[in-house]
Amino acid sequence: MSAAADLAADLDLANRLADAAGAAIRPLFRGTWSEERKADASFVTEADRAAEAAMRAILEMERQQDGIHGEEYGVTRESAARQWVLDPIDGTTSFIAGRPIFGTLIALMQDGWPVIGVIDQPVLKERWASRVGEATTLNGRAIRTRPCPELSGAVLATTSPNLFGEDEADAFMGLARGVAQRKIVWGGDCYNYGLLASGHIDVVCEAGLKLHDYAALVRVVEGAGGIMADWQGNPLDAGSAEAENGRVLAVGDPARLEDVLEAMGGAR
Amino acid sequence: MSAAADLAADLDLANRLADAAGAAIRPLFRGTWSEERKADASFVTEADRAAEAAMRAILEMERQQDGIHGEEYGVTRESAARQWVLDPIDGTTSFIAGRPIFGTLIALMQDGWPVIGVIDQPVLKERWASRVGEATTLNGRAIRTRPCPELSGAVLATTSPNLFGEDEADAFMGLARGVAQRKIVWGGDCYNYGLLASGHIDVVCEAGLKLHDYAALVRVVEGAGGIMADWQGNPLDAGSAEAENGRVLAVGDPARLEDVLEAMGGAR
Repeated sequence: MSAAADLAADLDLANRLADAAGAAIRPLFRGTWSEERKADASFVTEADRAAEAAMRAILEMERQQDGIHGEEYGVTRESAARQWVLDPIDGTTSFIAGRPIFGTLIALMQDGWPVIGVIDQPVLKERWASRVGEATTLNGRAIRTRPCPELSGAVLATTSPNLFGEDEADAFMGLARGVAQRKIVWGGDCYNYGLLASGHIDVVCEAGLKLHDYAALVRVVEGAGGIMADWQGNPLDAGSAEAENGRVLAVGDPARLEDVLEAMGGAR
Repeated sequence: MSAAADLAADLDLANRLADAAGAAIRPLFRGTWSEERKADASFVTEADRAAEAAMRAILEMERQQDGIHGEEYGVTRESAARQWVLDPIDGTTSFIAGRPIFGTLIALMQDGWPVIGVIDQPVLKERWASRVGEATTLNGRAIRTRPCPELSGAVLATTSPNLFGEDEADAFMGLARGVAQRKIVWGGDCYNYGLLASGHIDVVCEAGLKLHDYAALVRVVEGAGGIMADWQGNPLDAGSAEAENGRVLAVGDPARLEDVLEAMGGAR
């Protein structure tokens, strides 16, 4: 099989992983589930675990050579060249609160590069999917980020002010001053990156993200014509190393990345 | 007609207003619309205006005696005992960003009391509706807030840290320390109050709200067994006066209101 055919098969598998995760999550949404607090003080629910277990079961059947890097159940075969990076529910707090703006994240990293990325919202049945070399799709239809001629006109998104340390908050505030202040949306986790890929949001700025939080996002955003970088402007698609302090930017119009970095000046 | 039959007819009308607003909003969601910045620096879009105009047209046909208090087109017949309070899109920034967690708010105030309240999410087709004396419904099914035995276990929601002045932010931080920190969701506007009525969120704390932002919420939340109050603990259902500085609390389990006020202590 050619590399492209391989990737097509891998994307088909990623879609089936998302289907399985969604089937595990939907019956629990706005229902009853067990939950517990993790060592990092975040919560994990029965839905996170059931969704990751469902995905891992399929991978163990179909991809015995590949590694798995999952938020809830850790790393398997970590020296494999191909790694499936899974976040069964990105936005667990939104899931807990009954808000359908969380997502299942699935990435395939090949030698440290994200070659496949999926963001799946199982309640609204919205799925962003991308494989390297092809345009990102939303429910099968190719999408593009939008031009953003001026940073001042941008729509900016971030999940929570609590994710920022003090210096990080200063940098974010610099960015917020750079955009029209009222066009800032809060909350949303991975869902904001899907909307950026679809051309509704221009900039997402966050800190404290881990590889399983952003590996899939990089592929989805860049496959739609956007760019992801750390807060120094270094690209996030070049390897599996974690972004420094998990500081992540997504910019729909790559021509605005420098303006974003400049507005955040204090943090560089 | 008895007062109850009147109210049933009014709720039927409110449902038709929500239908008309939704029909105006849905085609523009994630589409193309004109927008402009208002004097208070917030944005208004073509969708806000079309939705309010559609609702006002129906009211002018069917309720020539009633007043109308709309966010975008102002007050008509302000001395009427019955006032329809309309917010065509609460959460315009979410609408702009393509996030389906904004809502159309419709309240009927009778002598200053909210007797009917509707929160409608037109994209997800979720509608919370309540008339005084009857349980709040979500898409026709009666709902209840949930018990919250300890404030520490609460799910807390607020739309944006930018809505808080400095003292207000201190009070909110006190409340945030009182709940498990990671169970805070940001963004969401009126949608969070619907989820509180449905028993998924326990506390919403906001400032800077206007009557059109919360009149419908009071009816929906209290019809589901919750309570709304200002930051002094004064009930919001007793008249049409604006809450002081628009400081609003919604608490699903009324037994927790005192704990919420105590945690916010600095602001009282």
